[in-house]
Amino acid sequence: MDIKKLFLDNPWKSRAYLERNGIKVGYAKIKLTPTRLADGSHRHNGDVAIYDTSGAWADADFHFDISRGLPKLRLKWVESRGDTTICGESVRSAKHPFGGRKILKGAPGRRPTQMWYARRGIITPEMEYVAARENLAALNGVSGKCSSNAPRNSLCMQHDGRALGWRGAKAEMTPEFVMGELASGRAIIPANINHLELEPAIIGRNFLTKINTNIGNSSMASSIDEELEKMLWAVKWGSDTLMDLSTGSDISETREWILRNCPVPVGTVPLYQALEKVGGVAEDLSWEIYRDVLIEQAQQGVDYFTIHAGVLRKFIPAAARRMAGIASRGGSIMAKWCMAHNRENFLYEHWDDICDICSAYDVAFSIGDGLRPGAIADANDSAQFGELEVQGQLCRRAWDFDVQVMCEGPGHVPMHMVSENMRRQFEWCSEAPFYTLGPLVTDIAAGYDHITAAIGGAIIAWGGTSMLCYVTPKEHLGLPERDDVREGVVTFKLAAHAADLAKGVEGAQYRDNAMSLARAEFRWRDQINLSLDPERAEAFRMKNDAEFTRDNASMHHCTMCGPKFCSMRASMEIKEAFGGENLGGCSAMEELNDE
Amino acid sequence: MDIKKLFLDNPWKSRAYLERNGIKVGYAKIKLTPTRLADGSHRHNGDVAIYDTSGAWADADFHFDISRGLPKLRLKWVESRGDTTICGESVRSAKHPFGGRKILKGAPGRRPTQMWYARRGIITPEMEYVAARENLAALNGVSGKCSSNAPRNSLCMQHDGRALGWRGAKAEMTPEFVMGELASGRAIIPANINHLELEPAIIGRNFLTKINTNIGNSSMASSIDEELEKMLWAVKWGSDTLMDLSTGSDISETREWILRNCPVPVGTVPLYQALEKVGGVAEDLSWEIYRDVLIEQAQQGVDYFTIHAGVLRKFIPAAARRMAGIASRGGSIMAKWCMAHNRENFLYEHWDDICDICSAYDVAFSIGDGLRPGAIADANDSAQFGELEVQGQLCRRAWDFDVQVMCEGPGHVPMHMVSENMRRQFEWCSEAPFYTLGPLVTDIAAGYDHITAAIGGAIIAWGGTSMLCYVTPKEHLGLPERDDVREGVVTFKLAAHAADLAKGVEGAQYRDNAMSLARAEFRWRDQINLSLDPERAEAFRMKNDAEFTRDNASMHHCTMCGPKFCSMRASMEIKEAFGGENLGGCSAMEELNDE
Repeated sequence: MDIKKLFLDNPWKSRAYLERNGIKVGYAKIKLTPTRLADGSHRHNGDVAIYDTSGAWADADFHFDISRGLPKLRLKWVESRGDTTICGESVRSAKHPFGGRKILKGAPGRRPTQMWYARRGIITPEMEYVAARENLAALNGVSGKCSSNAPRNSLCMQHDGRALGWRGAKAEMTPEFVMGELASGRAIIPANINHLELEPAIIGRNFLTKINTNIGNSSMASSIDEELEKMLWAVKWGSDTLMDLSTGSDISETREWILRNCPVPVGTVPLYQALEKVGGVAEDLSWEIYRDVLIEQAQQGVDYFTIHAGVLRKFIPAAARRMAGIASRGGSIMAKWCMAHNRENFLYEHWDDICDICSAYDVAFSIGDGLRPGAIADANDSAQFGELEVQGQLCRRAWDFDVQVMCEGPGHVPMHMVSENMRRQFEWCSEAPFYTLGPLVTDIAAGYDHITAAIGGAIIAWGGTSMLCYVTPKEHLGLPERDDVREGVVTFKLAAHAADLAKGVEGAQYRDNAMSLARAEFRWRDQINLSLDPERAEAFRMKNDAEFTRDNASMHHCTMCGPKFCSMRASMEIKEAFGGENLGGCSAMEELNDE
Repeated sequence: MDIKKLFLDNPWKSRAYLERNGIKVGYAKIKLTPTRLADGSHRHNGDVAIYDTSGAWADADFHFDISRGLPKLRLKWVESRGDTTICGESVRSAKHPFGGRKILKGAPGRRPTQMWYARRGIITPEMEYVAARENLAALNGVSGKCSSNAPRNSLCMQHDGRALGWRGAKAEMTPEFVMGELASGRAIIPANINHLELEPAIIGRNFLTKINTNIGNSSMASSIDEELEKMLWAVKWGSDTLMDLSTGSDISETREWILRNCPVPVGTVPLYQALEKVGGVAEDLSWEIYRDVLIEQAQQGVDYFTIHAGVLRKFIPAAARRMAGIASRGGSIMAKWCMAHNRENFLYEHWDDICDICSAYDVAFSIGDGLRPGAIADANDSAQFGELEVQGQLCRRAWDFDVQVMCEGPGHVPMHMVSENMRRQFEWCSEAPFYTLGPLVTDIAAGYDHITAAIGGAIIAWGGTSMLCYVTPKEHLGLPERDDVREGVVTFKLAAHAADLAKGVEGAQYRDNAMSLARAEFRWRDQINLSLDPERAEAFRMKNDAEFTRDNASMHHCTMCGPKFCSMRASMEIKEAFGGENLGGCSAMEELNDE
């Protein structure tokens, strides 16, 4: 795996930084080519700044050595708060080289969580960081000038007259705004004090829609190297968080490699490791075994835990009567445990203990939806919504411990039943961020379920869901490989971006406008580089025109239509006939956006 | 190209027929495997009937010879109406063997259009045919028992309190209902009296959502053979209509091959051939040249024409000021012509003449949207909506001639602006079927624009759009090839199906339920065969499990999770613990559907 090549293969894209109160905030810049004017002269086009999840991997000056890990960006931030103690040291293993790392924990009586700070009016560097990187309009120098196509006649989901999708009247993207959202529980910054390599990201409906990538081996396939490669691919293509769902061998070692090298928040389902510890026999699980796993993972630096504490005994009969039963691994494990012991879910009963552990490391919760529907026929049933109500109770209880919370949702849900999910979650979970798998809007598209899920995902994100869990083409058929990760990530980036446009996120449309202008001006190189997946766009373009090369990127037609039938070419002539030279550059983009 | 293999490679899927009043109606059957019960015995699962667009190509008894063409299914139907005359005979050419075909035309004073018959209360065999093939519930023997998940809390688009998406209170799917929809203009059966090879299909919002595939060469790429192969791929994967957008050489010959072998309605943009005739110089176009092309294509059997008659002079300045100008080929050609001649669009001025010609052959109109937005920034602007209003006028005028009409729409439109398109089209075009390209909900996903467009397409189809024009991954980058056609068709099949589920189309969910039950019961073979693309599903499944074979299709886990983490396996145990044997077979599907 040539990591340097993976991240630095595009000479028109580069890692950039800005400084805010001494904090270096990373983003990416796409360099555009000039516009050729009718008189043969050229007009300069400014860079387009975009949100970037690659971290130092996209920095040409980086060491690119996975055995050394990413720089500990947050070390000084965490230390300077003075509310943590060292509770141990990581041990190098035969399977990873990361020994000697000091393990941090909240000092006695302290909860070093972003929610705790926010509630006390403290702006952390993490809050500063996300405020800067979220502000696409400012990054492009068009604040107040590059608003998106304002929502009009919108179908945006509503609840009691409030749009669930977006903050509506524009609040400025400031650290203070971020703090307010965290304090209210409407947003989270998953950032374990032991994951110092993280570039902070915020998840909440008043911010850019985020996406998550699931990776992880199973007992039957994959290795540490393959999972590391998937992680790097995920952040290269733009994944905002990563879940390591490994269930096979080397769970701890795989996770150590990932955490030390991953620039985005990492989530897990601790139940999987607990189940491995009891040889895969769900009935043999216990709170003590589970607790030890929580602590191990919290000390390693996992940023959020999926915890299936809402799968209560009383919901199981309804779930058993379903067409597809219980589709969630965690849900089915806990249901089996409850039935075997004839007792309530131990995660529910030990919720306060779990909150206590997580508040000491700032591990956020992703309260699991163990009873999500696995079939269209099962959507929005009593088992699913029964659990969702419990998720809300668990959420509010976690807030008592200053633990950050998001709630998991969907699965298979037809389009007309999507909004009910969003509205109930909004109400029952007190506006905590919603994090959904899809939803998949039909059952019959095996091999194309990334698309089935992107349709539902775009709709629910527009409605206010804060993060979408990607789905790959392998869903229902097998374990995703590297190329599936790319396909899934790019698909969900486009779904999330579509939602941001529909929500009217300031600055989100800037890249679309740059792309459309590049199309109108036959700047093929820029069209490729402004795409979510420039490599694929270029490959498709070159495949169709053997004569298309990097040096010949401004030809005024393509094989699609040929020169005589090219509408963009005709449009250019029509525009010229209307006296004006062709529109070009960012100034024109701003003008159009102002209309 | 081994056509027989292309259509008959799946031994579990076969062409079936039912008879209605002496009319043989084609559909497809998927044979399911039995369910293994806990006691080791087996339960039979009935076939699943699905809508099929393959025509005789999927019939094992067919001759499979493209030089002989498809059987002339409609010959007797058209002849028996006694309202046509023979106006010529096709001539064999060096590039196609289809000579000696009698060319039909409406007898003097007669308009042999499906709308004409419907308005007079005449039920044609074409109407009988579509009523039978649309009735998925009846095909599966579950009429009244297998309704879909009833729409509740739906976001379904509304206009003046009417749901635009679906007929609401269930009207029975009868020939009489079809006739009423045709008479009102709410639906069309594109079926030229010279395309006798056609299996009739209906396009309207109270029927299954349809999809169209664009194929066609350009001056720079592709051959007759390649286009024929794309056509066969399109109908194999489920395309409901086909547009031949060829602009290169051999336009007429390519179309002849396609029409004689295509079991679904074929549309064209006659302007393209007209432009070829004047050497690609838009300014040299004239009504006379265009008229001759219309007549040639009508006599060949083209079922619907895209005509850009709504691109009026007054809209051009607004279109020229746009970010992406005029994205439609037809629109840009007509705009150039109007500007060069300083005259109104000759297609608009000769609309009555065009109606006259088309009514004599029953060529339906797809009134073009020459000013559709090519960029998010241009969505829903005055040029686009100005044209849409004119499309409505043209539509009503065509109805005066008993010509069937649908209207084309979208392009690039962000999600929150989609519903406005549907509502205005519904109102301005008097409920004529809407036929949209996408919409594409962002500009930045080159290489993935089939997905961008499927998101918008699913939303607008749910809102009442009758047919979606597919988009392939090559959109904006090059001419789609065979594999792109497959990717585009399957993607839009799933979007259209998602819309049918959301609209609550009776029987649409039957296949989803069959799939979900196959998942719950580890019937892998059935999961593969019930997928929209069984070949891909099987390839993905086999890639992940070397041990997975056709003979071993019921293994109770896969590499995704391995046996210990398999939620479906756990669900099966939980269901068994609840006393009931595992749910199985179609009776269980019906029960669940009844709830």
